[in-house]
Amino acid sequence: MSRLFMFEKPLGMRDTLPELYEKKHQIRSVIAETMKLWGYQFIETPILEYYETIGAASAIADQQLFKLLDKEGHTLVLRPDMTAPIARVAASKLLAEDLPVRLAYSANVFRAQQREGGRPAEFEQIGVEFLNEDTVSCDGETIALLISSLKKAGLAQFQVSVGHVGFAQELFMQILGTNGRATALRKFLYEKNYVGYREHVNSLQLSSIDKQRLLQLHQLRGGEEVIGQALDIIENGTGKQAIIELKELWDVLKDYGVQEYVKFDLSIVSHMSYYSGILFEVYAGNVGFPIGNGGRYSLIEKFGKKATATGFAVRLDMLLEALDGVQLEHAAHCIFFSGERRKEAFQLAEKMHGQGKLAVLQDITGVKNLDAFTKRFTDTTFLIGGRSDE
Amino acid sequence: MSRLFMFEKPLGMRDTLPELYEKKHQIRSVIAETMKLWGYQFIETPILEYYETIGAASAIADQQLFKLLDKEGHTLVLRPDMTAPIARVAASKLLAEDLPVRLAYSANVFRAQQREGGRPAEFEQIGVEFLNEDTVSCDGETIALLISSLKKAGLAQFQVSVGHVGFAQELFMQILGTNGRATALRKFLYEKNYVGYREHVNSLQLSSIDKQRLLQLHQLRGGEEVIGQALDIIENGTGKQAIIELKELWDVLKDYGVQEYVKFDLSIVSHMSYYSGILFEVYAGNVGFPIGNGGRYSLIEKFGKKATATGFAVRLDMLLEALDGVQLEHAAHCIFFSGERRKEAFQLAEKMHGQGKLAVLQDITGVKNLDAFTKRFTDTTFLIGGRSDE
Repeated sequence: MSRLFMFEKPLGMRDTLPELYEKKHQIRSVIAETMKLWGYQFIETPILEYYETIGAASAIADQQLFKLLDKEGHTLVLRPDMTAPIARVAASKLLAEDLPVRLAYSANVFRAQQREGGRPAEFEQIGVEFLNEDTVSCDGETIALLISSLKKAGLAQFQVSVGHVGFAQELFMQILGTNGRATALRKFLYEKNYVGYREHVNSLQLSSIDKQRLLQLHQLRGGEEVIGQALDIIENGTGKQAIIELKELWDVLKDYGVQEYVKFDLSIVSHMSYYSGILFEVYAGNVGFPIGNGGRYSLIEKFGKKATATGFAVRLDMLLEALDGVQLEHAAHCIFFSGERRKEAFQLAEKMHGQGKLAVLQDITGVKNLDAFTKRFTDTTFLIGGRSDE
Repeated sequence: MSRLFMFEKPLGMRDTLPELYEKKHQIRSVIAETMKLWGYQFIETPILEYYETIGAASAIADQQLFKLLDKEGHTLVLRPDMTAPIARVAASKLLAEDLPVRLAYSANVFRAQQREGGRPAEFEQIGVEFLNEDTVSCDGETIALLISSLKKAGLAQFQVSVGHVGFAQELFMQILGTNGRATALRKFLYEKNYVGYREHVNSLQLSSIDKQRLLQLHQLRGGEEVIGQALDIIENGTGKQAIIELKELWDVLKDYGVQEYVKFDLSIVSHMSYYSGILFEVYAGNVGFPIGNGGRYSLIEKFGKKATATGFAVRLDMLLEALDGVQLEHAAHCIFFSGERRKEAFQLAEKMHGQGKLAVLQDITGVKNLDAFTKRFTDTTFLIGGRSDE
């Protein structure tokens, strides 16, 4: 192999070395344990799926998909998210009895990056899908579980921003008349480019009242008071219905006692076309992107079942960034031995392992630099040469 | 999407539903915990690697690789094993101090299957690599850890067959003169086709003594007595050296007290060209394939570091097959609530979660078939309608 490629990895691909691995593992375990206690059951789906099934359904931009051809000439993709594969499994196998289904996953997903990006092309999401129930209790449980999971993971400061796909949609329709004319505004909101949004609104040929209504949209952020402000802008139709749902959701979240972590933000929009109800994003610390997001969606209908669901996904890498500074305890014992006392060393190690203590067994002849190796352990035992009575 | 593709997965790809997922998770956790106590550190590598780096090094047949092109036109592969990626990481980052390094992994690997096969194209391996130490202690620790891991996983009956790449190699060279002429014999041994092996040996133009030596090779299976029998066939050179190493290994395994799980089998060969010392395979119950395998290899040299290593990988799916019959305990409580008593229900669930009990919260208006849903739980609580004093 050429020197050039010897140590190289494809663009956006990363190795996870032991210390980071262990941190990820601990946080994943705590969150998974929480999800299980709430009754969510974990499933796994293949990394490769048919493009026609999952790639097309997933709503991740086509140029972000890793594609390959199988031997029959079908296009395969590396799964870009877990929502579409879970919708496939649920529709084909788990919704036969037409009951609520609570599923969870922790899985790597794949999104091809551009050369200049520096973002990972493979990253882990841990999340849930609460399928086939359309109550506000379902939405509330999902958000309460997200908050409980993050607290259990040790995250102290974070905020869940909750919006509703129906509000901005109705507002844009009332004022602009078509979905197409709203595309530019939606894009500004999705990119959180409020200056651009404002300038664009001001450039439109609209009455000053309608401009005012559009400009107020991205200020509808805060606590329960936002409900009233929103009803000042839209008094009827699906927009009003969206606000009523958010009010009910707020009451559920108060019963969970988690309202201090929640703010409304009616300017939240999604690039995912399958969202059909509430939408939410989690922000924490100095991390510039949402560490998680979710909402209610109608994707399962693409797989032939009439059902909606609410789910969320947390990005484990971003959560770790938000938790930066968490230190792991390392207590590691090394038992050095020479051939004469090998059996004694093995027995000591077995005893320590039985007590749940990390103990490395090391043939002293296998170590070239003993000082450097010893430094890696908190304790050492030397069982070398003759018996201890020598 | 067409009906044809709606629920389909690519050839060899499988979904893992909750019950199997949980079994896999429990067995993986127990084995990982054992590896950690022995001082092995887990790492993760990307699923996509350059073909030139990992595909070429991995020794998995080229037609079994999943290949794709990146935007720069480089060929990428889905990793077909973990040994090559770990050799890459170790050589580039972890061997700078020239010390022994103990690494572990649990990871999915990918091998494309033919239409008629029915074998999985994506499966999970859990394993270790003990790098940069060439003592017999290193080989012994690897096998003892394999045995300890399988016992901890609950496997009662299994056998580790241990051979050495140097023995058959030397025998074939002494009798046939070139490696090329040995290819057919190697293939019969790899496929465990002993009838074919015997017929092929008898068809060769050789002295009856040499034929006898070749025929004895696949009978060199058993305990310590095999050592003496092997020395009757090869009295010198690397073949004798291989037997001396196996004798030393046996003494180490006796000190670990695991010799009851080990048999010698000098007819074990590998299709992996990078093996350079001992080789081993694990068989259990009625599973027709090895549930794990390993050996000493020189692969790290391909990444520019002069070092060997010993490692093993266990196939989690095959181990589960061998453990068939293991049942998980399910204790799941469901708290049904109506809006009036929602808060009371949430508080009860929180209390149960705090005690580590699985408790599902279920809005009773979200369930269409209450009987069917209730059957999924071992206990239920109904907090419906007015307060309990009604």
